[in-house]
Amino acid sequence: MPASRPAGFERLCVVLVATRNPLNIGAAARAMSNFGFVRLRVVNPYEPSFREARSAVGASPLLERAEEFNSVADAVADCTLVVGATAATRRELQHPLHALAEGARLLRKRLTSARVALLFGQEKTGLRNEDLSHCHWLLRIPTRKEHPSMNLGQAVAICLYELARAAEPAGRPESQKRATAGETERITALLFDLLKASGYLGRRPGPADAEKVRRLVRRLNLSAPDAATWLGMLRQIAWKIKSGNDPEA
Amino acid sequence: MPASRPAGFERLCVVLVATRNPLNIGAAARAMSNFGFVRLRVVNPYEPSFREARSAVGASPLLERAEEFNSVADAVADCTLVVGATAATRRELQHPLHALAEGARLLRKRLTSARVALLFGQEKTGLRNEDLSHCHWLLRIPTRKEHPSMNLGQAVAICLYELARAAEPAGRPESQKRATAGETERITALLFDLLKASGYLGRRPGPADAEKVRRLVRRLNLSAPDAATWLGMLRQIAWKIKSGNDPEA
Repeated sequence: MPASRPAGFERLCVVLVATRNPLNIGAAARAMSNFGFVRLRVVNPYEPSFREARSAVGASPLLERAEEFNSVADAVADCTLVVGATAATRRELQHPLHALAEGARLLRKRLTSARVALLFGQEKTGLRNEDLSHCHWLLRIPTRKEHPSMNLGQAVAICLYELARAAEPAGRPESQKRATAGETERITALLFDLLKASGYLGRRPGPADAEKVRRLVRRLNLSAPDAATWLGMLRQIAWKIKSGNDPEA
Repeated sequence: MPASRPAGFERLCVVLVATRNPLNIGAAARAMSNFGFVRLRVVNPYEPSFREARSAVGASPLLERAEEFNSVADAVADCTLVVGATAATRRELQHPLHALAEGARLLRKRLTSARVALLFGQEKTGLRNEDLSHCHWLLRIPTRKEHPSMNLGQAVAICLYELARAAEPAGRPESQKRATAGETERITALLFDLLKASGYLGRRPGPADAEKVRRLVRRLNLSAPDAATWLGMLRQIAWKIKSGNDPEA
């Protein structure tokens, strides 16, 4: 699990511009909390939306502390780098454009020393030309060209995930002990006997049959605890076949 | 801009289990379309939700084509790899767990040759133990440990983004065909019956026993030919136990 809040994350301002839907404001705040960001700013939100998002049951402290601004200029005034998230389908092409993976690398670099703003536009229209004019460059999530436009809450979540992604250590190492060859061989022998007793192998199984069974069991690549379980199960089944066929049993 | 639909993406089944909120079903469908995935399956959705999501204005063709199932087993039956998305806070720790970046790499590899299911649980509770018992391994989005639980639509979007993220081609397809979840489930059922008949499981095995057996068999990660072999062997052994215990035989 990554460090709770990588250095510099407190310097990122997520700026939602003219957001209409309170659910999207709430979703952005939730994703910020998931990935360790704290500074939410809203510019001219549709007022009832913002009030609703803030007063929602379970609204996060992060949302309660969100700062409200009347203009993009004010919202980004203390930031040294301003970046706009966009589907980049139209007018934004006069700006430098980075795909998210590369853009996030640049953002992280700047976050080590200075405050950065990441802007998200209105749900339907995205960032307007005026908003874009505050941006140093644009960030594009690599969506499919036939359907580039994302849900706002999802776009925020993906950008923050990518920012936090590099901080993530590799997955849990395989901690589980593997079965020894001796254990595997005991399973092989037991299974071979069972297959003989059940008639699966025919009356006179040869060395080729034994090898086949051995390979089959080796390919299971059992962990030590699973090998013990299989051994116990096969023993019980073998006992049952033996007692079931024994009229004295 | 990436290729419109990378090879293999049509083989991913996004499976939403017991989803309550129609907005989340719609959000999942939208993210799928953004990143080029097409196959949506829902298991026991809260019915009014599913109807509402389907009939929403602008509901995508993808959502209209979504397939509905009554059980996880049915929903994943034609898949060779079943993976559960989880915040991994509790009980899931008995499963192998991959962080998203590494997990996505494994998923992409399998998608070059076979169908794969990616499961998402209910909004509040996530995947239940019974759902998890169908999974080969789990996928964890690297959220902060103080707030690991994500919004469902955002979690789906981030997983699909990561799957689509790698620009590099997926490499050589896996040579050996893997067993489908349906084949694996048949082995599970047969083994369960054998363990009951042999007395290994006691007289009244419960759902926890069935889950244990299912997990044990999933962990074998069988190839398709090996699955057929095991099925044949277990059938023969089962027949032998039955006939051995039958005084008429």
